[in-house]
Amino acid sequence: MIRVGIVGATGYTGAELVRLLSVHPEIELKALTSRQYEGVRFDTVYPALAGVTDLSCEAFSADDVCNKTDFVFMALPHSLPMLYIPELISRGKKVVDLSADFRFNDPAIYESVYQPHSAKDLMKVAVYGLSEVYSASITSATLVGNPGCYPTSILLPLIPLLRNNLIDPNSIIADSKSGVSGAGRSLSLTTHFCEVNESFKAYKITTHRHTPEIEEVLSEHAGKPISISFVPHLLPMTRGMLSTIYVNLNKNVNGKNVGECLISFFANHPFVRIRPEDQPPDTLYVRGTNYCDIGLKMDERNNRMIIVSTIDNLIKGASGQAVQNMNIMLGLDETTGLTNPPFPI
Amino acid sequence: MIRVGIVGATGYTGAELVRLLSVHPEIELKALTSRQYEGVRFDTVYPALAGVTDLSCEAFSADDVCNKTDFVFMALPHSLPMLYIPELISRGKKVVDLSADFRFNDPAIYESVYQPHSAKDLMKVAVYGLSEVYSASITSATLVGNPGCYPTSILLPLIPLLRNNLIDPNSIIADSKSGVSGAGRSLSLTTHFCEVNESFKAYKITTHRHTPEIEEVLSEHAGKPISISFVPHLLPMTRGMLSTIYVNLNKNVNGKNVGECLISFFANHPFVRIRPEDQPPDTLYVRGTNYCDIGLKMDERNNRMIIVSTIDNLIKGASGQAVQNMNIMLGLDETTGLTNPPFPI
Amino acid sequence: MIRVGIVGATGYTGAELVRLLSVHPEIELKALTSRQYEGVRFDTVYPALAGVTDLSCEAFSADDVCNKTDFVFMALPHSLPMLYIPELISRGKKVVDLSADFRFNDPAIYESVYQPHSAKDLMKVAVYGLSEVYSASITSATLVGNPGCYPTSILLPLIPLLRNNLIDPNSIIADSKSGVSGAGRSLSLTTHFCEVNESFKAYKITTHRHTPEIEEVLSEHAGKPISISFVPHLLPMTRGMLSTIYVNLNKNVNGKNVGECLISFFANHPFVRIRPEDQPPDTLYVRGTNYCDIGLKMDERNNRMIIVSTIDNLIKGASGQAVQNMNIMLGLDETTGLTNPPFPI
Amino acid sequence: MIRVGIVGATGYTGAELVRLLSVHPEIELKALTSRQYEGVRFDTVYPALAGVTDLSCEAFSADDVCNKTDFVFMALPHSLPMLYIPELISRGKKVVDLSADFRFNDPAIYESVYQPHSAKDLMKVAVYGLSEVYSASITSATLVGNPGCYPTSILLPLIPLLRNNLIDPNSIIADSKSGVSGAGRSLSLTTHFCEVNESFKAYKITTHRHTPEIEEVLSEHAGKPISISFVPHLLPMTRGMLSTIYVNLNKNVNGKNVGECLISFFANHPFVRIRPEDQPPDTLYVRGTNYCDIGLKMDERNNRMIIVSTIDNLIKGASGQAVQNMNIMLGLDETTGLTNPPFPI
Repeated sequence: MIRVGIVGATGYTGAELVRLLSVHPEIELKALTSRQYEGVRFDTVYPALAGVTDLSCEAFSADDVCNKTDFVFMALPHSLPMLYIPELISRGKKVVDLSADFRFNDPAIYESVYQPHSAKDLMKVAVYGLSEVYSASITSATLVGNPGCYPTSILLPLIPLLRNNLIDPNSIIADSKSGVSGAGRSLSLTTHFCEVNESFKAYKITTHRHTPEIEEVLSEHAGKPISISFVPHLLPMTRGMLSTIYVNLNKNVNGKNVGECLISFFANHPFVRIRPEDQPPDTLYVRGTNYCDIGLKMDERNNRMIIVSTIDNLIKGASGQAVQNMNIMLGLDETTGLTNPPFPI
Repeated sequence: MIRVGIVGATGYTGAELVRLLSVHPEIELKALTSRQYEGVRFDTVYPALAGVTDLSCEAFSADDVCNKTDFVFMALPHSLPMLYIPELISRGKKVVDLSADFRFNDPAIYESVYQPHSAKDLMKVAVYGLSEVYSASITSATLVGNPGCYPTSILLPLIPLLRNNLIDPNSIIADSKSGVSGAGRSLSLTTHFCEVNESFKAYKITTHRHTPEIEEVLSEHAGKPISISFVPHLLPMTRGMLSTIYVNLNKNVNGKNVGECLISFFANHPFVRIRPEDQPPDTLYVRGTNYCDIGLKMDERNNRMIIVSTIDNLIKGASGQAVQNMNIMLGLDETTGLTNPPFPI
Repeated sequence: MIRVGIVGATGYTGAELVRLLSVHPEIELKALTSRQYEGVRFDTVYPALAGVTDLSCEAFSADDVCNKTDFVFMALPHSLPMLYIPELISRGKKVVDLSADFRFNDPAIYESVYQPHSAKDLMKVAVYGLSEVYSASITSATLVGNPGCYPTSILLPLIPLLRNNLIDPNSIIADSKSGVSGAGRSLSLTTHFCEVNESFKAYKITTHRHTPEIEEVLSEHAGKPISISFVPHLLPMTRGMLSTIYVNLNKNVNGKNVGECLISFFANHPFVRIRPEDQPPDTLYVRGTNYCDIGLKMDERNNRMIIVSTIDNLIKGASGQAVQNMNIMLGLDETTGLTNPPFPI
Repeated sequence: MIRVGIVGATGYTGAELVRLLSVHPEIELKALTSRQYEGVRFDTVYPALAGVTDLSCEAFSADDVCNKTDFVFMALPHSLPMLYIPELISRGKKVVDLSADFRFNDPAIYESVYQPHSAKDLMKVAVYGLSEVYSASITSATLVGNPGCYPTSILLPLIPLLRNNLIDPNSIIADSKSGVSGAGRSLSLTTHFCEVNESFKAYKITTHRHTPEIEEVLSEHAGKPISISFVPHLLPMTRGMLSTIYVNLNKNVNGKNVGECLISFFANHPFVRIRPEDQPPDTLYVRGTNYCDIGLKMDERNNRMIIVSTIDNLIKGASGQAVQNMNIMLGLDETTGLTNPPFPI
């Protein structure tokens, strides 16, 4: 059994990791850290998970984590992981970081939207954890930078199309909508019940920090710099993310080519499902799962492909994909521990 | 006092008309029809409106409606109004029809997405009730075809930009999201609580019947045929609609031009508000009002203008705009009866 | 025109006061105070109310408030009003306080559940603002302690029954459910969207501070000390409160007597509606209104009367009743400014 | 592997059975019936469960079901199971019926609130499936009448207290609140999104058909006829049920006795959890689980015990308990297949 720790276990992605890992057959949860809840049983913080683990939260200590665990998930806000991870790696641990700290190849891009980075060498070593695309590198990685939720939902359908030169890279528009859990557990007027219930709005239009993350990866696959228009919106519900993506097709490309490209690319990737046109994606169909569902509809009159992708922002958009990456890093089947069926409604 | 009737009073747009008209100072509600609830007091059907009117529902009869009223709102499903309205008009009544039956100039377009039209002559007489754009014609109209909710939210910001040649008419993408009340009161699995609660999805991608309605109007203002990409989505909330619209700017046009154009166009139209960039629209800010809020954000890197518009789908998207049109047709101030402030939350 | 000020205007009850007073025909809003938003236009804090008032928030100053206004609403957390109100009263202002500070007759009860009271003399002068019951005293009051939301929903149906000796005062159980807006705008994990959405729970069972408020008033009308079982619950919605009340009938009393007693007691009180048995109350029917709806169902087998009462917790449960009290204090019709019809849905 | 069939698989309890049984290690799903969706793949009806089963729905045929399965769940509306089950039983199948048809001992009670019963002999054979209370009889049962959701949440805490003579059986009041999924998938205005969203109401006060079900069982354990006051309410959320129960304690009984009685009674029943007083139940903590959480708070001043119990109405209130009963009937550990941890939020 692999001994696993979660640093920052009491945020929503941390708690979701606890849930998923508690039924994972090949690992054992050995350490949960939380500054805020030091000394408190984890299941007092999340009573829904009563008895799922007997662990109590402890303050982070690199020594403790290294002694108790072989594999570490970092579920802390960005800027902290870059301080803690170098020691963990140097002491031979494998790490999946759910923050933005190790998602970028180019430190300058990271620093332009976050803050100065104190572990740039490690950025080069880290592998971007978009499991279906980078599984070959993830297999041998010691550090994985787990993708953001919006990037996951947008990159999965676009990368195959760019790699196969089917779409105009200058035409990409991503209109994304996220459930409130994506904003985390920190208190804010934005996530105060009465301010978001029965409400819908766009936010950080063109300025969301996931934009450069998406663009760096898209550019890599297109072989040239790409910029996109990205608008996130906030949905009055807890879980779920849907991205509606608009792209122009290249000459001599038709809608059928797009569908075949995606079906082929994801043929051996069980967590990506290309849905039939008469059954378009719904966030309800992926809630509680690690799936990314992709629907396609060709807008023939405008030569535009309309792609709809859905994920559970806390699972394929965060903790589920993190576990999937752990599976790959440990040589396990990537679906291990991730196959429980979701609610029918 | 103008005597007013509502045909189809027990659907959501009908009930919203009752609410709005019950406090309108210049009219008197004289007849409410409903096949389903014939003989039942209206406020038994909608107990929230107890005492707001003492009227009971009656089966539709052209004679009765003509005897009792001077002005008629038709809030029936499409295909019925075309049967009833000709007689009302011929007997001197003024009519606002909330269905699609009299929104189109070109019968062929209507028939291609609805069904055969039996009152084509009247289609030519009818004025499209997008109040801010067609007020001059509405003033003297006897029949107004009240716009759909999606078209209202999309046309208002785009028409001024097309008229002033600021945007590329081939680049228009409208990604719209609507509350569930837009689907009306008829029972359907799509609007069954457990199927839509905590869910989000796109539907009728590129095939929604509001698409030709939007395109016919846009084409008129552009002076040439326009086709757009339109994707509606269903929000898990009762009221509210938000459209995120993407357009490329024409050469030598910048974001400031767009803002100035809209501010100027709507200067004397109190129900359209161009919001400051640091206060983007939220459906919560227009819920219960007849406002259309418009936010702008220039995506400089991609030379794309991103427009966000919000309405309450039942008010500016239906019954409120219908009352606004009645006000204009009757020579009243267009805001009469429509200025009650909404909930702060 | 009466000049009115609101101290603590940016909480939910303050904002609701702004909304209601902005359409009140006999008053003029002259001052809004907020420590947190000093110098900020009120409608920047609540964009839904854009243009409803041009006032900006100011820090509280007794001098300013006294110079600018004749009538003051205090919408601050308890313990602050007792510090500010004495000066306002001594300078001739009339005041409605929405906190608990002036709801109690007995300072000892107040101090046992809140904190020491620094203006006990004024407690004796203050009138309890349950409008329908204390209107005679409110008419000549200079200071009204506006009731809590739970007490309003529970006291209105029970007081007439106790006064007429119809029910056993030792048998009262009140099972109440409130929308989240009752918890106010202060941030807390309890009102964080993801923690309360799709959730339902009881809280402060038997220990809620509204219990002694309810009991003091009930005891006064029963002529002897009464204790009740009171359990509040939190509903996953913004507005609305429903109390289900269980009481045993006294000997020789039947269900019909109860209904007749309430109908008679509230005959001249338009904001209390006794609903027919086949149309039980629903919070949706009172949302956005100052009504308290009361439904009755006799449980014959157990000789228990089951009373269901509903209010909008922010209106009849707070700001609406405060305006109703102002109307009474100013000699206006009590419904002035409070009669706009609510949404049908 | 036991071969299992579900008759009526496309309602909400049927679909939840499919979900639970699809991961059950000791059984194999062999037949799903649905009149409405005959010939349609089950996962087309519930796309969230895509791939969970490859079965298609078939019309019910006793022959087919008997040939394909050893164990049958009936998830049909009441009145149908009494027609189908006799043949299944006579052909040696074991059956759990989720309708009311086999919950009652006394046919007269059933017939007074449902309709004439055509299989009264079988009623005597059937065991009431409140797993924790009747496990001894369930072990050898061939037919189990699975309890209603409200009864489950009310009976579990009360039966031990009545058996131990701790409470006054004439004092029982149960104020219950249910999520909308309890109303099933059949279309109705009551469960139309806009009519129930942001709404809360009581319904069928004292007349709900679960009342006699509860009373028959309580009376059995009290050793004398008991009548209770039962008021169900509808919550604006999908899943979850909370019952607040008020009972007077008998002489010489205190709150501690009640707690100890329940802890002792459920000591070997992992699905019932008596929660510590500082962590009262929340429907969110049992959503997606087969738990029934029970919280206790003694109202000392009124000598009343206040009991709060929570379940997921579709799981412990229906399909989960049905699987638990199957486990007991098959000699398996009762928790088999029912231990997946729920969402933290």
